[in-house]
Amino acid sequence: MKQESIIGVIGGMGPYAGLDLVHKIFDETLAATDQEHVPVALLSYSPRIQDRSAFIFGAIQENPGYAIAGVAAALETLGASVAGMPCNSAHMPPIFDVTRQRLRDGGHTIRLLHLVDETIQHVRSTLPHVKRVGPLSTLGTFRTGLYEKAIKAAGLFPVMPTETVQADLVHRAIYDTQFGIKAHSAPVTARASAMVRDAIDHLRTRGAEVVILGCTELPMAVSPDDDPTLIDPARALARALLRETYPHKLRPLGAAR
Amino acid sequence: MKQESIIGVIGGMGPYAGLDLVHKIFDETLAATDQEHVPVALLSYSPRIQDRSAFIFGAIQENPGYAIAGVAAALETLGASVAGMPCNSAHMPPIFDVTRQRLRDGGHTIRLLHLVDETIQHVRSTLPHVKRVGPLSTLGTFRTGLYEKAIKAAGLFPVMPTETVQADLVHRAIYDTQFGIKAHSAPVTARASAMVRDAIDHLRTRGAEVVILGCTELPMAVSPDDDPTLIDPARALARALLRETYPHKLRPLGAAR
Repeated sequence: MKQESIIGVIGGMGPYAGLDLVHKIFDETLAATDQEHVPVALLSYSPRIQDRSAFIFGAIQENPGYAIAGVAAALETLGASVAGMPCNSAHMPPIFDVTRQRLRDGGHTIRLLHLVDETIQHVRSTLPHVKRVGPLSTLGTFRTGLYEKAIKAAGLFPVMPTETVQADLVHRAIYDTQFGIKAHSAPVTARASAMVRDAIDHLRTRGAEVVILGCTELPMAVSPDDDPTLIDPARALARALLRETYPHKLRPLGAAR
Repeated sequence: MKQESIIGVIGGMGPYAGLDLVHKIFDETLAATDQEHVPVALLSYSPRIQDRSAFIFGAIQENPGYAIAGVAAALETLGASVAGMPCNSAHMPPIFDVTRQRLRDGGHTIRLLHLVDETIQHVRSTLPHVKRVGPLSTLGTFRTGLYEKAIKAAGLFPVMPTETVQADLVHRAIYDTQFGIKAHSAPVTARASAMVRDAIDHLRTRGAEVVILGCTELPMAVSPDDDPTLIDPARALARALLRETYPHKLRPLGAAR
């Protein structure tokens, strides 16, 4: 029997980020019944996938891209032709390129969408007048220039935070063990939330027309759904996955849920 | 390479209920890093699984149990030895018995935990003094006596709502197209929320020591996490799935998250 296309999600980086992406896939689907929803397979195999930042900074030797490719191959076996992963640091070239190469070497045909490229593409297609794009992220993503390079490659102008704002506001808001979002996310502390808002204002003062919340934790601190100039990469990826599989079910932008 | 046990989740009934169960599995896990979390596979294949209530009430002929068994078999292929599904009506005997039989006939060994039995077991093990248990559910679940029979089978005393309360408060709070929880869940309307609270008070007045929120929508209307006498079946199932796979990672009851 011919089965319908399955949307694959490589989860576990972290576990809740995988759930958040699937939630957004459902949110962005035009469906009035269970049966009208799209089929999604989420494989949250976090014990198998080593820490992405630890690899990038040399603390561990094993490239997480091999394990990620293994999960993608399992999704292909289930019938997924396309997959996404809601982890910014897994898209840094030393990891992402190895993942794609490993899949090619194994003869796999599943297509892995690129979170960062899809986010920039989302800005270009939904806000075509925007030229100056400000990304916020972890210090690791910032230093590797992941968003900065992708923004430039798309012919747009990156508006970056100063190193001080990046380290003292954004990184601490995410990682501080006392008040950071990784330690306290339900709810996010007032202090972390204020720091993220200050960093957003900083990029706007520098001329950013939109701000990309380029780390899974950042959309928890502010509400990107209420402000079209705040871009949530997970929502962009959710929409891209639907576009590639069930474009007729993709909720029009701005339509009520 | 020996891979770790995977927890299987049969989602799509409905899509958000599958996410809610996985969220609770993660919440109930003792883990400080991504890698310490447990591996979970969620297959949300809602287009393949026909409406459970429609089958029970004779509106459709195809037993959803066949499709559910197919999803369970796919989870087994991935390496899951145990699975659960967060849908009360899929546990009514005409569906659940067929699902288990189909898996047996196919030579499958994956074990499907039973949401209702695990919920009653959860009450017995965590609140051993409780004798009088009041279940709230949809009208279909109420009429088939799913919870009532399971409570009796466990040697406890079921405290049931009157038919009027069941139909006019609980069922309408879930299904009313104007203010019901299926139509408005983010946030739940004040009216639906008040109706669910009135139904809970009704069961307490009748002598219920605990109230089971035996329909996926009901925990959205009240906050079972704040009241140990309100039982959320999805949380009971999440803990049962961990108990069967990673008992050393199961968060002690009452421990801070």
